[in-house]
Amino acid sequence: MTSGTVWGLGVGPGDPELLTLKALRILRAVPVIAYPAPDTGESFARAVAAPHLPGGQTEIAIRMPLGDGQFPKAEIYDAAAAEILSHIEERRDVAVLCEGDPFFYGSFMYLYERLAPRCPVHVVPGVSSLMACAGAAGSPLAARNDVLTIIPAPLPEEELRARLAGAEAAAFVKVGRHFAKLKRVIAAEGLTATAHYVERASLAAERVLPLADVQEDRAPYFSMVLVHRRGRAWR
Amino acid sequence: MTSGTVWGLGVGPGDPELLTLKALRILRAVPVIAYPAPDTGESFARAVAAPHLPGGQTEIAIRMPLGDGQFPKAEIYDAAAAEILSHIEERRDVAVLCEGDPFFYGSFMYLYERLAPRCPVHVVPGVSSLMACAGAAGSPLAARNDVLTIIPAPLPEEELRARLAGAEAAAFVKVGRHFAKLKRVIAAEGLTATAHYVERASLAAERVLPLADVQEDRAPYFSMVLVHRRGRAWR
Repeated sequence: MTSGTVWGLGVGPGDPELLTLKALRILRAVPVIAYPAPDTGESFARAVAAPHLPGGQTEIAIRMPLGDGQFPKAEIYDAAAAEILSHIEERRDVAVLCEGDPFFYGSFMYLYERLAPRCPVHVVPGVSSLMACAGAAGSPLAARNDVLTIIPAPLPEEELRARLAGAEAAAFVKVGRHFAKLKRVIAAEGLTATAHYVERASLAAERVLPLADVQEDRAPYFSMVLVHRRGRAWR
Repeated sequence: MTSGTVWGLGVGPGDPELLTLKALRILRAVPVIAYPAPDTGESFARAVAAPHLPGGQTEIAIRMPLGDGQFPKAEIYDAAAAEILSHIEERRDVAVLCEGDPFFYGSFMYLYERLAPRCPVHVVPGVSSLMACAGAAGSPLAARNDVLTIIPAPLPEEELRARLAGAEAAAFVKVGRHFAKLKRVIAAEGLTATAHYVERASLAAERVLPLADVQEDRAPYFSMVLVHRRGRAWR
């Protein structure tokens, strides 16, 4: 029996023009879209895709508590997977909209885990905030044989310190309310002067600053700090 | 005086449909394109963009020895930057085509370093092979508070071993002729059974295999090995 296909669509970091041609083609063709959304209010992934939506699609908002330190609840993904599967069984393709790239710290993996054993699931990779932040900051992530380490800022201070100590180049993700701690860790390694802070990369509200110039002790969820031990990757 | 603008365009991992809408718009609008190319033969970045080229553009092939262990020669980038700048001074925008993303181990940084002090340079982030490989393998890169480490395979065996030992999740890039060494390192950590090998992600010749099933001791330059200590990021 043929069934529908689930597409995990990376919609990129925020600028609707950073969708890929492939994501756009699929987004316009599917009868059903699904996306993560906060308990109340607008889905960021849907907002990124909104200018491209053809209208008339069935929409599945996967609502969940979002934000720092919240990890996904199994029941929410169980229910979302079941709802998606009901369309797939009726041969309706479903596109799941994913901020950035689906498999880079993305919640799509929790749907993938549930759906891939039961129907065709394909991932369309997207532009990650990691690359968008580096581009916005004018700061290459890594060069030559640099090891690049991606470090979630919610980790304990001691662990952040240990991870940074062993890294030539690092990107701290999920900064949010962990910003003060992160700034201490980077200062202790003597790397503040060359670190870049990037907020809401590729959006109209994008902010790029030398880390040393950022006064706040909290950052938005969509922010990142980039560090390179040589100061610049190309040196 | 107004001048032209240099665009560092990420063209994605290989599938021409993985260009972003923004890269496509700029690619079609500029009078001059530049791209890295081997000493003789075709440029991969140009080949990815080729289906989208409008024709009639001035082309600058930045020819250099490519491949394992070769690092860029300053004179080649000096000359390319000078040629690009001559167009910029005549108010002709130049798009530099970059495989994957311009700032993820990309050679574009060597032009950026030379051009950014002298004219407007903007980076358009692209889909990286890192994300394309994960999508092709059906293997999320990292979840929750995982630290993700990107490790160039040309590093010495002892260093590869030390880096992998401290990583929850790792992606080995630039595999090429270092494949036998890399397989030993992954086996020593007991991670062979859950590692994924991906070659030429997103291209027609894409190959995805469990690492344990790969017999060869050499890999193409465009290949990657993905490892997750939990076996699967979502566990």
